[in-house]
Amino acid sequence: MGEFELIRRYFSPLAERHKSDLIVLGLGDDCAIQRIPAGCDLVFSIDTMVEGVHFPKDYSPERLGWRALAAAASDLAAMGATPVCFTLALTLPAVNERWLTGFAQGLSEASQSFGLVLAGGDTTRGPLTLSLQVHGTVREDSALTRSGARAGDLIFVSGTLGDAGAALDYLAEPHPTPDMAFVLDRYHKPRPRLELGRALAGIASSCIDISDGLQADLGHILTASGTGASIDPSKLPLSTALRNLKGSEAVGYALGAGDDYELCVTMPRESWREIPDSIRCQLTMIGTIEETPGMRLDDSAISSSGVSGFDHFG
Amino acid sequence: MGEFELIRRYFSPLAERHKSDLIVLGLGDDCAIQRIPAGCDLVFSIDTMVEGVHFPKDYSPERLGWRALAAAASDLAAMGATPVCFTLALTLPAVNERWLTGFAQGLSEASQSFGLVLAGGDTTRGPLTLSLQVHGTVREDSALTRSGARAGDLIFVSGTLGDAGAALDYLAEPHPTPDMAFVLDRYHKPRPRLELGRALAGIASSCIDISDGLQADLGHILTASGTGASIDPSKLPLSTALRNLKGSEAVGYALGAGDDYELCVTMPRESWREIPDSIRCQLTMIGTIEETPGMRLDDSAISSSGVSGFDHFG
Repeated sequence: MGEFELIRRYFSPLAERHKSDLIVLGLGDDCAIQRIPAGCDLVFSIDTMVEGVHFPKDYSPERLGWRALAAAASDLAAMGATPVCFTLALTLPAVNERWLTGFAQGLSEASQSFGLVLAGGDTTRGPLTLSLQVHGTVREDSALTRSGARAGDLIFVSGTLGDAGAALDYLAEPHPTPDMAFVLDRYHKPRPRLELGRALAGIASSCIDISDGLQADLGHILTASGTGASIDPSKLPLSTALRNLKGSEAVGYALGAGDDYELCVTMPRESWREIPDSIRCQLTMIGTIEETPGMRLDDSAISSSGVSGFDHFG
Repeated sequence: MGEFELIRRYFSPLAERHKSDLIVLGLGDDCAIQRIPAGCDLVFSIDTMVEGVHFPKDYSPERLGWRALAAAASDLAAMGATPVCFTLALTLPAVNERWLTGFAQGLSEASQSFGLVLAGGDTTRGPLTLSLQVHGTVREDSALTRSGARAGDLIFVSGTLGDAGAALDYLAEPHPTPDMAFVLDRYHKPRPRLELGRALAGIASSCIDISDGLQADLGHILTASGTGASIDPSKLPLSTALRNLKGSEAVGYALGAGDDYELCVTMPRESWREIPDSIRCQLTMIGTIEETPGMRLDDSAISSSGVSGFDHFG
């Protein structure tokens, strides 16, 4: 099967199934064409996954299709962008029809779920590698970035942390317990916080998605913003499954493990008081931004901030 | 050296050196942000190059940097788009500082030459693979596509064809003759026809860049347009170097060999009469679009068209 037949059979149907009015020209020409609504900017990010580095050898192609698009889409969530489309550069060692069917299936489910239509791509022979570029839009000057955190801002995270990291210990488990199944689902099927990110655009002072672990990713906010932070480790949102599986080590997973694709956001106290409950209930306050550079783990970080009562995952 | 240090040392300087007012946010956040001028659409394409497939093992990193961006930029030329920026997904087996210095140098020269600034990327470990996505803009509804060729349109190509294909025979030549050096330069340093493409936007009825060979690429126009074509092989523009090196086989290279990154365009006779000499002199008429599907090689294709006297490379 040649490249054109491969695209016609596996990827054109995907592009036909999920469409966008903003894609003026899709697959099949030298370039694709996207219309950007007036008053909006294009937001884009490219992410690569390599077999044996970012996913295990012989990893389920359905799961890979979902995870690859989810990981890329998470960067749009972190900018507060509205998802539009993606391109796929797929390098394959050989044409394996069963693999391609599964991969296209997982990718199609993610495409529909995230509102990202396939608008272009390239397929080549070589070691299994995927690069996906995602496109979204934001109102001019309202994108969330890493550089806006200011001393006194409160720090929040979405969902629960550490689950996907713990899942790595159970990937080969033939009979997972319900707790293992929960964290494995968090690893295999990350759900990028696209709606939450959009709701926070123009409200949060900074935002990043947690792909490398809270410490590393909050560290990027601190570096870009020229600030420091105190984190209360006892406030980190932990799933019951993670507590059951890892006991006293759970906090370490929540601080250091990646692949959760939750959001870490900062905002001034006044902003927090004004946002609707529907957004508040998705966030847990874990600390405060401070002038002194560096990240401090401090049990008193939150009680000293004078804010309480909104720890919905505590 | 970690990923962040690698980006800081080799790619941030490149992004600093070549900038665009349209890049609202560049390297260093979850996403980049591009502003699209009012009345314009975004045009984009992703291309992958794999070591051992698209370029030889131990290929010069300077040349690879240039060629990878040139090949991607050529797709913008084929759409008649104005270049803006690109993203780079670079997968490397190891951090080799000499290789990275050379690669960044070649990429920087191409970036400046084509007016494409580095706006985002991802670097990962794995077998040497590059995916580049290029972004340009076109006035709404004026992009060149593959699907607009109509029976009676004339067919043109830019530059000379077959040189890069012939170069493959001399890649290992220790003492290339001047003719070999000419075709080797055409292979190592393709110059995408960005200005010509832009000048033809709104004029040509269809356009494609010749990356896989004239027969294959004109074939894509014919399929997309639902038409056929007659080509006069004696009119194919051949360099003196190619004629000297390949003699009577030169036409075969011009028809079948890829990597030239010239343009193949079609337009009605009336359009051809009206375009300025500065554009005419970059094009050679090689045949006509016909209703009957398929491509015919026919010595009488041009004389029967009733048009002559503009074969500037004949």
